[in-house]
Formats: sequence, structure tokens, C-alpha cells
Amino acid sequence: MKEQEFIQIIKSTLNSPYIGDDCAYLKDLGIVISQDSLVEDVHFKKGLITPYQLGYKTVMVNISDICASGAKPKYMTISLSLPKDTDNEFIEQFYKGAKSAAGEVEIVGGDITGSDKIYISAAVIGSTKGRKISSRSNAKPGYKIIVSGEHGNSAKGLEILMQKSPLVQTKGINNKFIKAHLMPEAQVEFSRQIAENIKEDYAMMDTSDGLADALFQIAHASNVIIDIDTSNIPHDPAVDIQTVLYGGEDYQLVAAVPENILQKISGYTIIGSVKKGSPAVKLDGKILKEPENSLFNHFKE
Amino acid sequence: MKEQEFIQIIKSTLNSPYIGDDCAYLKDLGIVISQDSLVEDVHFKKGLITPYQLGYKTVMVNISDICASGAKPKYMTISLSLPKDTDNEFIEQFYKGAKSAAGEVEIVGGDITGSDKIYISAAVIGSTKGRKISSRSNAKPGYKIIVSGEHGNSAKGLEILMQKSPLVQTKGINNKFIKAHLMPEAQVEFSRQIAENIKEDYAMMDTSDGLADALFQIAHASNVIIDIDTSNIPHDPAVDIQTVLYGGEDYQLVAAVPENILQKISGYTIIGSVKKGSPAVKLDGKILKEPENSLFNHFKE
Repeated sequence: MKEQEFIQIIKSTLNSPYIGDDCAYLKDLGIVISQDSLVEDVHFKKGLITPYQLGYKTVMVNISDICASGAKPKYMTISLSLPKDTDNEFIEQFYKGAKSAAGEVEIVGGDITGSDKIYISAAVIGSTKGRKISSRSNAKPGYKIIVSGEHGNSAKGLEILMQKSPLVQTKGINNKFIKAHLMPEAQVEFSRQIAENIKEDYAMMDTSDGLADALFQIAHASNVIIDIDTSNIPHDPAVDIQTVLYGGEDYQLVAAVPENILQKISGYTIIGSVKKGSPAVKLDGKILKEPENSLFNHFKE
Repeated sequence: MKEQEFIQIIKSTLNSPYIGDDCAYLKDLGIVISQDSLVEDVHFKKGLITPYQLGYKTVMVNISDICASGAKPKYMTISLSLPKDTDNEFIEQFYKGAKSAAGEVEIVGGDITGSDKIYISAAVIGSTKGRKISSRSNAKPGYKIIVSGEHGNSAKGLEILMQKSPLVQTKGINNKFIKAHLMPEAQVEFSRQIAENIKEDYAMMDTSDGLADALFQIAHASNVIIDIDTSNIPHDPAVDIQTVLYGGEDYQLVAAVPENILQKISGYTIIGSVKKGSPAVKLDGKILKEPENSLFNHFKE
């Protein structure tokens, strides 16, 4: 898959101003929309996640995109493609997990079709009413970089799962890392606090592709340097710094905001600041080498 | 796939009032949303459709759902999952076809992921501003049943394609039936005329699953008899009546409307009327036997 080439072709074919952020902001309708897919053996493996957890994660992953925009998650549709041998129990558990994760977000439709493997695609709508909507191109020199929680837990969880996969099929998740991987929590409240209180333009992303990736994307889209103090990045002591930086699927939020908002919000950690200069991410003053397959020109996220 | 059982499980698990029509009508946001998927070897075969046609059809199939609601199609997102060997040409042609079909509808996002087969899922948003939104439960005794165009052409086109598949890969479609199958047209204008002018509640559906299926669904949801005069159903003389009734994917619209609207719209054909009584479809006065796998309890459509 030459994903980046494909993205460029799509961008130039569509020539749309909407493509670039986690969500498309449809101002005339007062909504944002996002669509995300989970494919068996690409994003998950049957043996490592229960149907309930898969439903839960599908919803959270999609709600997280809306949270990144600052909009209020409201409605979603879920399209499921399933192999012939799928049983009723799978459907029931999947939707129980989905409903549990959705909370106040209503699942209002979708479709079911046949396929060889499990393929899930969900679309989510958020309302922009009373919210200031983010864009990853809005980071400005002087802004602080804040995050909503610990990084690297999901990747650590996956590592543990790969070592003892059959165990997961049993009930309960009493391990923080495994829970972070299988049943992540979208940062709804962190997003609401910022979007309802902030006056200035700001940048916000979720860390679905890892913290470093999000920082690179904001730096490039905003044409700024992001300077991170690694000692301030919240993480569990058991997780090494590479995993903290590059481990994906934590679904935490990272935002570049003016300092004056900080007195109006809670539950954040300052991990760095935005500086003037050619797009770059610095760790403790040293320029971080861009990954070769950097995702900064993604179709979305 | 025990699709109908699955739908029942989803309905009872979610217990949502939104599920039932082609689109979910989100009144507080003034929008409708729909999501539809096309899966390789389930909905299409690579050898029978070009990438351009596939992009075109993906968009039209999804816009058609919005047209069925009476809303104005505005925005869509497309999620593509593609095998590793997909080339740039596929992407370019797919999106050229999609853009051509979209017209004024803007494609505002989506994602690309890997997979074994081609899997396409699109979500569409329609605006309800100035439009009266349909529901398949709104047909009332005395209403007329009208349709937007010919039925059975798409199924006839597929039949022709199956007989001479390699030809399709060559340029151009000079056959009306093949065109109806590969590049259907959503009935945007038919929908607009009704939704902008009608005062009363009305029922409307597209004929993606066939005319008979749409009639059964409206009859059941509205608890009425639908009496059809088969000689009035528009169709090509080359298409037999079974194909006219049961052939899917024409993406025509069928509506149950009060007679007074007819003077304000054009391009319709009256094919029958709505009568009081236990839910049924009658053809020329005779009750039509319900297909065993009737789709009237579909998740959507």
C-alpha cells in the first residue's frame, strides 16, 4: 500500500478544502463529520479482542476524532461486514460494547453486509454549537502544548497481549495496559473544557497514531517548532520513552493552546511549547528526526 | 449470514428510535445521515466494473439514500480498504468517477486502510432545510404511488454483463441497461420537487433492493395495502415483469403521496394507490406473495 501516494492523488483529484483535520468541519450545517475503519488482521486480530471490546473500541476510536475537533459527539452510524460464520452472540456482544462506549452518543443506523473478514466502518457527527473548533494548522508561537493523559499504555498493552493472547478471551481486564489497548477512552471531557472556554484559534489532535506523529503533524500544518520537555510527558514508569513517543492508539488528546486557557480547564499536563521556526519537533532542545514514513500528509489524522 | 436475525438483535440492543428508514433524521441538527457499503465479490466484481464506474456508483448509491429521505445531499466521506497490489491508477480513476457523480455534493474526508479485498463504505449528510422529510411509515389510504423512472434496467444490465464480462473493461457504455447497472443516477431532482413542495407527511424509498421490496416495506411500516397497476410500471419492453418487480439497484424513487402534490411536480408515473387494510401489496387486485426473505425488517433500506 502506497498510502501516501494515494492520499496525494485523492487530494489533487478532489481538490477539496475540507481534507486535512481529523474531522471535516461543515460550517453551514454546524457539524463536524469523521469516518474511521477497523479491519480484521490490519487493526485487530480476532483472538486478541472480544466482540464486546471490539464494539467498545470502534465507538471510542470514532468519538475520539470528534473530541479532537472540539465538537460535541452526538450521533454515529456503524457499517459491519461479516463472514458467513458470524454468530448471533458476536452481534449482540459487539453492539452491547458499542452502546456502552457510546454513552450519550446515539447509534442511529448503518448496514450489515457479507465479507471474508470482519470490516467495520463508522461515521460520527459532532455538533459545533457553543464550541470553538480546532485545526491542526492553528498552533502559534507562545502556545503551550498540553496532553490529556498517559502515553504508551496502549502499545504496552498490545505487547503484553501478543505474549499471552489466549488469556484475553477470558473475562475481565485487570491490567491497565491491556485495558488501554482494548477499551480506550475518548477524552470527551478534556475536549469539552477547551472547546467551550477557549476564545483563540487552537490546534488539537488525538494520539491515535502516536504522540510523536501528532506533534509532527501539528508542527507541519502550523509551520512551527514544537519543543517538548520529555520529562513532563505523563507515562507509566514501566513504559519506555520510545513507546511513549511512538506507540499509537492511546486516544489521548494533545493540544496547542494559549496560556490563558489553562486557568479555565483541569486535568491537563503541560509537556512543551510552540516556537517560531521551520517545522520541527524538538525533544529537550534537540531536533527529533522525522520518521521516514511520517504520516504528516495523511488524508486525515 | 442470518442478516434478519442480526438486525433484530441490533434493534433490541440499541433500542433506538432512529433505525428504520434509509436515513436517520437528526432533527436537532437539521440533517439526515446514511451509510452504505460496497464489498468486492458481494456487491461488485472487479472484472465487471472499472474503477471509475465503481467510484461513480459508490457516490450515487449513497446519494440515493439521501434522496429517498427528501433531504438535499450535501457532503460525504468515503472509507476505502484496498489490497496491497492496488495501483495509483485505481485510486485516481475511482476518485474521478466519485467526483463526477458527486456534482455539488462535496467529498470531505474518509480514510484508506489495507485489506484483502476492496471494501468501500461511504457516509452521506443531507440538509433538511426547506425540505419535508419522508418516512416509510407515512403512506396513508387515498395516497397515490408514484415512481421516478424505469424499473428492471439495472438487473437486465447485470445479466448482459455476466454474459460478456471482458467487454466492459473497454471504454464507453453504449448500452442503456449496462449503464443503469454500472453508473446509476440518483433521483436528486425528483426528490427535491416533492420535498420542497409537499405539505403532508409522505413515504419515499429508493428501489435499491427492487420495487417489490420497497412496496412491501412501505406497506408494512405504514400498515396499509398498496395496490399496483402493473401495466403502469415504467419499464423497457425488453425487461420481463419479474425483473421489473424484483430486480434491484435501479435507484429509482417510489413514493406514496397525496394527490394534490402531483400538480406541482413533474417526471413521475402513477403506478397505484394506497388502501386501508392489513399490510399487503396487490398487483392488479391480486395479493402479491411476500418473498420468504422479505427485507421489510431490514436495519435500513
